Amino acid sequence: MAVAKRELRIGLIGTGFMGKTHTFGFAAADRVFDLPYALTLRAVADRTDALAAEAAASFGFESSTGDWRAIIADPAIDVVDITTPNALHKEMALAAIAAGKHVYCEKPLAPLAADAIEMADAAEKAGVKTQVGFNYLCNPIMLLAREMIRSGELGEIRSYRGVHAEDYMADAANSGGFRVDPAGGGAFADIGSHALATAEYLLGPITAVMGDHVTAIAERPDGQGGARRIEVDDIGRAFLRFESGASGSLEASWIATGQEMQHEFEVYGSKGAITFSQERLNELRYFNAGDPEGRRGFRTILSGPEHPPYGRFCVAGGHQLGFNDLKAIEVAGFVRAIAGEQPEPFNFRAGARIMTLVEAIATSSRTRAWVEGL
Amino acid sequence: MAVAKRELRIGLIGTGFMGKTHTFGFAAADRVFDLPYALTLRAVADRTDALAAEAAASFGFESSTGDWRAIIADPAIDVVDITTPNALHKEMALAAIAAGKHVYCEKPLAPLAADAIEMADAAEKAGVKTQVGFNYLCNPIMLLAREMIRSGELGEIRSYRGVHAEDYMADAANSGGFRVDPAGGGAFADIGSHALATAEYLLGPITAVMGDHVTAIAERPDGQGGARRIEVDDIGRAFLRFESGASGSLEASWIATGQEMQHEFEVYGSKGAITFSQERLNELRYFNAGDPEGRRGFRTILSGPEHPPYGRFCVAGGHQLGFNDLKAIEVAGFVRAIAGEQPEPFNFRAGARIMTLVEAIATSSRTRAWVEGL
Amino acid sequence: MAVAKRELRIGLIGTGFMGKTHTFGFAAADRVFDLPYALTLRAVADRTDALAAEAAASFGFESSTGDWRAIIADPAIDVVDITTPNALHKEMALAAIAAGKHVYCEKPLAPLAADAIEMADAAEKAGVKTQVGFNYLCNPIMLLAREMIRSGELGEIRSYRGVHAEDYMADAANSGGFRVDPAGGGAFADIGSHALATAEYLLGPITAVMGDHVTAIAERPDGQGGARRIEVDDIGRAFLRFESGASGSLEASWIATGQEMQHEFEVYGSKGAITFSQERLNELRYFNAGDPEGRRGFRTILSGPEHPPYGRFCVAGGHQLGFNDLKAIEVAGFVRAIAGEQPEPFNFRAGARIMTLVEAIATSSRTRAWVEGL
Amino acid sequence: MAVAKRELRIGLIGTGFMGKTHTFGFAAADRVFDLPYALTLRAVADRTDALAAEAAASFGFESSTGDWRAIIADPAIDVVDITTPNALHKEMALAAIAAGKHVYCEKPLAPLAADAIEMADAAEKAGVKTQVGFNYLCNPIMLLAREMIRSGELGEIRSYRGVHAEDYMADAANSGGFRVDPAGGGAFADIGSHALATAEYLLGPITAVMGDHVTAIAERPDGQGGARRIEVDDIGRAFLRFESGASGSLEASWIATGQEMQHEFEVYGSKGAITFSQERLNELRYFNAGDPEGRRGFRTILSGPEHPPYGRFCVAGGHQLGFNDLKAIEVAGFVRAIAGEQPEPFNFRAGARIMTLVEAIATSSRTRAWVEGL
Repeated sequence: MAVAKRELRIGLIGTGFMGKTHTFGFAAADRVFDLPYALTLRAVADRTDALAAEAAASFGFESSTGDWRAIIADPAIDVVDITTPNALHKEMALAAIAAGKHVYCEKPLAPLAADAIEMADAAEKAGVKTQVGFNYLCNPIMLLAREMIRSGELGEIRSYRGVHAEDYMADAANSGGFRVDPAGGGAFADIGSHALATAEYLLGPITAVMGDHVTAIAERPDGQGGARRIEVDDIGRAFLRFESGASGSLEASWIATGQEMQHEFEVYGSKGAITFSQERLNELRYFNAGDPEGRRGFRTILSGPEHPPYGRFCVAGGHQLGFNDLKAIEVAGFVRAIAGEQPEPFNFRAGARIMTLVEAIATSSRTRAWVEGL
Repeated sequence: MAVAKRELRIGLIGTGFMGKTHTFGFAAADRVFDLPYALTLRAVADRTDALAAEAAASFGFESSTGDWRAIIADPAIDVVDITTPNALHKEMALAAIAAGKHVYCEKPLAPLAADAIEMADAAEKAGVKTQVGFNYLCNPIMLLAREMIRSGELGEIRSYRGVHAEDYMADAANSGGFRVDPAGGGAFADIGSHALATAEYLLGPITAVMGDHVTAIAERPDGQGGARRIEVDDIGRAFLRFESGASGSLEASWIATGQEMQHEFEVYGSKGAITFSQERLNELRYFNAGDPEGRRGFRTILSGPEHPPYGRFCVAGGHQLGFNDLKAIEVAGFVRAIAGEQPEPFNFRAGARIMTLVEAIATSSRTRAWVEGL
Repeated sequence: MAVAKRELRIGLIGTGFMGKTHTFGFAAADRVFDLPYALTLRAVADRTDALAAEAAASFGFESSTGDWRAIIADPAIDVVDITTPNALHKEMALAAIAAGKHVYCEKPLAPLAADAIEMADAAEKAGVKTQVGFNYLCNPIMLLAREMIRSGELGEIRSYRGVHAEDYMADAANSGGFRVDPAGGGAFADIGSHALATAEYLLGPITAVMGDHVTAIAERPDGQGGARRIEVDDIGRAFLRFESGASGSLEASWIATGQEMQHEFEVYGSKGAITFSQERLNELRYFNAGDPEGRRGFRTILSGPEHPPYGRFCVAGGHQLGFNDLKAIEVAGFVRAIAGEQPEPFNFRAGARIMTLVEAIATSSRTRAWVEGL
Repeated sequence: MAVAKRELRIGLIGTGFMGKTHTFGFAAADRVFDLPYALTLRAVADRTDALAAEAAASFGFESSTGDWRAIIADPAIDVVDITTPNALHKEMALAAIAAGKHVYCEKPLAPLAADAIEMADAAEKAGVKTQVGFNYLCNPIMLLAREMIRSGELGEIRSYRGVHAEDYMADAANSGGFRVDPAGGGAFADIGSHALATAEYLLGPITAVMGDHVTAIAERPDGQGGARRIEVDDIGRAFLRFESGASGSLEASWIATGQEMQHEFEVYGSKGAITFSQERLNELRYFNAGDPEGRRGFRTILSGPEHPPYGRFCVAGGHQLGFNDLKAIEVAGFVRAIAGEQPEPFNFRAGARIMTLVEAIATSSRTRAWVEGL
């Protein structure tokens, strides 16, 4: 007979793509990692009772509700997981925090940085644990990259080049919906945020930025047979200064025809360099300047058991983790943080920080001047 | 309230690497796919009660036992899943079949083809469903490749080049254990079987083979301080003839220093060609001879929602499936076959077929003559 | 008996790396292309008579001299080729122009844009033909890329990303010599100029820039046992606006550890995209958004006879042109321009233009403001 | 004034693709390498006086003739270079040898091995120097690969995989001309010979082969409106044994749709591995098993000055040699051999050896049995 673990009871609000992905994460994390809690899928909420009931059946939740406030109010729920549209995050998260729940929320926390900061403040005051979904950071290869940087293996880090480019808005006939909302929309907010998160994850705090936002498709359908003028960036670029002394650049684009997941970085140090692309998330290219003359070159390190927590998923290298595995790692980190075993991997404060940077780059672009003191 | 599905109750025998991987597969398949059954992790068996109890707790099974026969005997179990060492598969599978259970068994079915055939015969006679674990075949990219071949998109298929090379036996100080057992051991049996499965999956039946087995490391430690002479192949090569008229070659090596998962194929047709490597399992390289002059080249197709069942895991392309996701697809196919919704994806008959081919190549190598009529 | 062509008689000043490369170019161009002139290696000059005589013997020139003015004065010379250090270019080129010679000069024309403009003005006034060595532009793959852009095959061009990074200054113990001279030195001037040339070659005129120069290695040896403060950029970045409406970015770095020839670009249009790296100069990666769903991906086009003037070198594709072949193409273009068969491929005016852009980016970096009206 | 070198006077027979390529080689070798002779393009022969005169003008030869025997008879010629169709090589080469000329001949020496052996015998008896054109072997990266193998850097070499695949015969409407001649034709003779040359260059003598020739396109146009039955191989495969104890495989295909120059090898040793593709001839992929755990991977070594004779072409790495540069290296090696400075790089004996292997593989395929004692 299995030994019973204490339960951690999840209440999910929102059952779209990300809701489903989170559920995969809960299901996998429970088995892949030796977690301090058993994860129970307690209840799920959607806009109507029927939709919620369907999701409960499909995802494996014990109960369902058409009223998200019932999730908040349920004393048998420990963690509220919010995967609804961005504009709803704040109200739901603040309510959950007020009810003493730990809160897991998809990025971005809210359309505006000020709202995200308010959410982070509330969580810290209430003493609940929080997590924002930035799962690219959960990749064992990312952890390896950070360790190579922090340990000095690459020497003094001098420069950084980061990109996050996709093409889901490349078609001028795509209205863009909420993504092109002047308040909080744009490519840099939507996916440049990933590039920023990776940059700070690897090299530490950014202190100054110079931005360059470009609206390449000036007009898109308004969804009602007409057209509307677009104000947000299709492409956002930034020069960066890091506290460490390194400099760098970022680019975010949602009109990069042909790119599906060009989340890339290049890090150049005095002793070596690394490069990465999310399209090959199990590979890190590494140049060691200390290799013998005539034998130097960028090598491709394949993710394996030497790169924790890969070994939790597979005992042999070369077997490839996938996107959903990264979500399981994210869940595991959050659950351990709730148990007090480790700091929160990427809490609301970290999520708000990214939005502050996004806004600073937008401001810089508008004023055509560097923004410093970040 | 969730609508209740009929349950499919799993009994797992063996809790090592593959046991764990199967459990991941059950947990994920239940949520990723809209399966006709709810999968219940009913009971797990290992060599001792204690080990089994530990596995139950960690994997999430309802109960545990130190006696695998208790799994077979349990009327509340529908599917027996066998992930024990190869030598034990036959006894367990035959017992499970005799008890009317559906059986899921890791590859290879048994050390010898004759045993595997016996297992397939028994299953067919009993009318139970079976599944052998060949999860590379479950990749959406593999399905895409097969469709491009079968539909005629690549024209008449003329030649095939397949490889499965790794390096886990490259160190001469590695004893090899059961892997170098003269009865059923060797690189071709261990991993060449994957290359064979892929070849027939894509191009259909192989009818003739010419083999070339080489023992490159003639002596290995016997695990007791001495040495033993090695008889099995470190490298196995084969020429192939397919029923379709195409010809090809295969190579299996477990001493390919530096290769972690070089499961590769190249298919050349009159209108196009495709190539693949398992180390980049989300990519298919495709050449279309019909592209305009000066614009031709191998393109890299990234796995996406256009390639079912990728869309079950993620709504957007470029997000990368991983090894464990393939296991979930394998589980889903088996469960659907149990429900009668589709044929068994890779049943004991198919598993036995692979072993027949493995033995034919070994025979050919030993007799230095082609083996035909396969 | 061979039909005699009119001669074009070359006088070379400077016999270092680039002098040798130019000689390779003359020798090859004469045979690879059906040129309107026979190229005669008339005379070579170096600092001393002895050095020049040695070069004449090794390179195959008819005569030699220790006095470069003798080359200028020689009425039996039609083209003066200058491959001396940058600081000497202006005096030599102006003297050659004054003597009515056509002039071929390595990049950069002079340390400062004003000097380069003076050189271009003089050449135009004198009516002689000029050529600056930007041989990356002579690659058939570059010509293909430009044609795909200009013909509309890629649709409306929206964004550009260019890099030229190497690591020859990554070692802080490297003094840098003339390269770190505050007047005209720095990574952007040295190699960012290549990135600028490629950007304008492909997308047309740049109209505005925002620069970001960084000195990452603040102090280097002064070559006399001491140290000196470095003022020039180790890394230079720029945001770009093109006259066409497209926007883009560039980065130049000479401290990009591990990079030997990262001359790369990515061009994104509404109908397709192309990417390139000089380290694989025979390949163009091309994405066609019009490919069928499920079959899209970046394809690798290999340079071949469909991409002129590749066919001059080899009748079959896949045979790889090299760096020196590009020089032969450059020479051929210049010779044809002298014969009046085509415009000058990259004359002094074009060379001066690049330097104007380099200085604009430096100015922008210093003033922390966009520079427009370029 | 340049110091005069002794002349080596070239007479070229044949002015097609290869004739032109050889001329590029002579022109470049003279300048790139510090050769012991000045190379003089003395005379060129083609089928008619007019064709020959045209070639002389275009290629830069001093004189021309419509009678190849005039080249042989000319006392002012030291080296006869034969680039005519294969069937003519023997008569011309034997005549040149009889006249005491050094002979440079394109591959293959003759349609049949016996003829090639006769040519090698004659040359050795006459004491003239010979060279067969196998210029892939002249690549600095090939020399590096061989040194890594011979020096023990890769440990004991265990296995080899070689391919040479192209697609110039993939179209069933291509008659094939002399290439499909039953005597000496076929893919393995035509391009498998390159794969064999590379295999022996790297690993030393092959002692046994098992062949598998396949005619995939059974009928082709006969060039006169009808069809003819094809007997030669479109695809040839072979298992190999090397004298060193290593084993391997080869494949040659001229119907590999999409492949333009898939001349590839993989070498696996006990301490490391290397892989190569001619389509990226400036790169060697290298795995060092001695790299630290978690940092291992195949690295891409770029050809550079550390890899002689790259430095003769360019002082900086990453600048890419091309196909024609390899020809210059071939010429230089032959010229030095004539001067007695080094052994002949690839003489008629070596060329005949390759043909012996080609025929052994064909015989093995026909008899369906291993051929040993090679």
